[in-house]
Amino acid sequence: MIKAHGYAAHSADSELKPFAFERRNPGPRDVQIEILYCGICHSDLHQARNDWQNSIYPMVPGHEIVGKVVAVGKEVKKFKVGDLAGVGCMVDSCRKCESCQADLEQYCEKNPTWTYNSTVRGGKDINFGGYSDQIVVDKHFVVKIPKNLDLKAVPPLLCAGITTYSPLKHWNVSKGQKVGIIGLGGLGHMGVKLAKAFGAHVVMITTSPEKGKDALKLGADEVLISKDPADMQKHLGSFHFLLNTIPNAHDLNPYVALLKRDGAMVIVGALMALEPPLYGSGLIGARRTVAGSSIGGIAETQEMLDFCGEHDIVSDVELIAIQDVNQAYERLIKNDVKYRFVIDLASLKS
Amino acid sequence: MIKAHGYAAHSADSELKPFAFERRNPGPRDVQIEILYCGICHSDLHQARNDWQNSIYPMVPGHEIVGKVVAVGKEVKKFKVGDLAGVGCMVDSCRKCESCQADLEQYCEKNPTWTYNSTVRGGKDINFGGYSDQIVVDKHFVVKIPKNLDLKAVPPLLCAGITTYSPLKHWNVSKGQKVGIIGLGGLGHMGVKLAKAFGAHVVMITTSPEKGKDALKLGADEVLISKDPADMQKHLGSFHFLLNTIPNAHDLNPYVALLKRDGAMVIVGALMALEPPLYGSGLIGARRTVAGSSIGGIAETQEMLDFCGEHDIVSDVELIAIQDVNQAYERLIKNDVKYRFVIDLASLKS
Repeated sequence: MIKAHGYAAHSADSELKPFAFERRNPGPRDVQIEILYCGICHSDLHQARNDWQNSIYPMVPGHEIVGKVVAVGKEVKKFKVGDLAGVGCMVDSCRKCESCQADLEQYCEKNPTWTYNSTVRGGKDINFGGYSDQIVVDKHFVVKIPKNLDLKAVPPLLCAGITTYSPLKHWNVSKGQKVGIIGLGGLGHMGVKLAKAFGAHVVMITTSPEKGKDALKLGADEVLISKDPADMQKHLGSFHFLLNTIPNAHDLNPYVALLKRDGAMVIVGALMALEPPLYGSGLIGARRTVAGSSIGGIAETQEMLDFCGEHDIVSDVELIAIQDVNQAYERLIKNDVKYRFVIDLASLKS
Repeated sequence: MIKAHGYAAHSADSELKPFAFERRNPGPRDVQIEILYCGICHSDLHQARNDWQNSIYPMVPGHEIVGKVVAVGKEVKKFKVGDLAGVGCMVDSCRKCESCQADLEQYCEKNPTWTYNSTVRGGKDINFGGYSDQIVVDKHFVVKIPKNLDLKAVPPLLCAGITTYSPLKHWNVSKGQKVGIIGLGGLGHMGVKLAKAFGAHVVMITTSPEKGKDALKLGADEVLISKDPADMQKHLGSFHFLLNTIPNAHDLNPYVALLKRDGAMVIVGALMALEPPLYGSGLIGARRTVAGSSIGGIAETQEMLDFCGEHDIVSDVELIAIQDVNQAYERLIKNDVKYRFVIDLASLKS
């Protein structure tokens, strides 16, 4: 076994602290990665604190992982020692169902195996995530990182990036379309950059004029302040596509009304009951769609990284030492980050 | 002007009674039709009784109209005297907006002109519907009726037929797919017949075992009793497409859970707030869609009628005399009809 070190939560109400554990020795299909950077996704905090009532402790969070390959199994041709590599939200899936066969492992009918807060597929050992110095993952779930990108700003692409890229691609967002990104956080800021790179006219839809200004700096063409009725009225029935990144329950109806005929709003952030209820008339009157989308498959994650390489797109990040992770969680609760914290794993050695 | 006779509502709480009025003389683009049969849509009753708070009186309801051409304007080449012709829910639209140009007049950005409970486009005269002996309509909004169909069973195709055909077509329902029709009324019974003709494996989804049996007679392959949790569990995540014809507020979530990955549920009946609220997780977990759809454009209505001609599809109807229209409304409230009342306008002369 490989000796690994990281930071772990041991219960819902304890802080993350240093943790020593073991990784498996790489098997024939495995890639061993020395982790250089790991992003902090809001879901890390939810899971560390058992907000979703399904937490497994000890928990090493982290599913936005980039690093350097340090060993490969004999069946691994795609990677060699020294390559840059990434691991996102999944490390395994059934690989046999219709979704897995269609390269949509995120919708695996027997559920994907998540990078952390899960057990090894078919076993009982806990999977530990990226707040650590090493990880060993089956080659199918490892992606290549374009060399031209600023490595420390790449990790969020593996969750926030693919979560926004996948629906933009699936719903054929393209040049000449008017696309709204609702909400400016980790997801929203990637949505703006990616929709812009897809050639769309990008409108940031936010309650906050301050965030609106930030969005313009990120590349948005226009800002719609959603709490201003006159502004909402002006944009009625004008959007081809809306990417809804709001993480909380909210009224969908005012956003549905912004869609053109045959327009679609795709929800990527809010899992809960979306109160108040949706009106049938809003959908029927213009053949509108409300849909949902979850991360992306492994092949599409590679495609997204290559796209980001070509368009020189990375996240806006704030680099922290792992010793500051608990403080970062507190700031995350206050949305006090533009737009993702990334842990510099070199700090683990200090 | 042409002297016309029909039945009209004069207020929300009065019964329909005989009514004499005038139709315009056919202009160069007009088709004059002697109405032979007119279906009774549930919306006729809602509008006669001002349930939607937008009724214009006197009101001659009826937007499922078939008859014989008795005169045509000089610019009309598509119809000649003696032809069978139909008129559905619309008699005009702006004809210039993106939707009108795309043959989707039902989504006209300046709103279509409805066949009744509306005024002449750009004018003040009230449009009167099909519970009458004559109608004069611009050729663009008149469709041809296949000669092989039983004419008295054709009128509901012009509303219930196109309302179900259009989403089945738009969402590419095809052979090999598992398609659920939710609710068995005027819309649902057409949904079953049309989805079957599209080659799908058709499942009637209903609370009522009795309606389930009726659906099998209409051609459904299978019945799912939605109030039986074990039956719902059995069909979880298995449908490519759901056509939701429920006319009242209802919980969408159990139906969303029936959809496969990338499946869509299209709402055609319920305009109101769909309580309880929709869960984001149901959409996100399998990239599912909830959408809405309204009738169909004129070109698609013609396509649907031709399709029904080829596949020998008509509605199941109960023919009534116009003198029985008020009684039919009372029975409609109790869902006591399989599946559409059709008025035989010959009765107007008796």
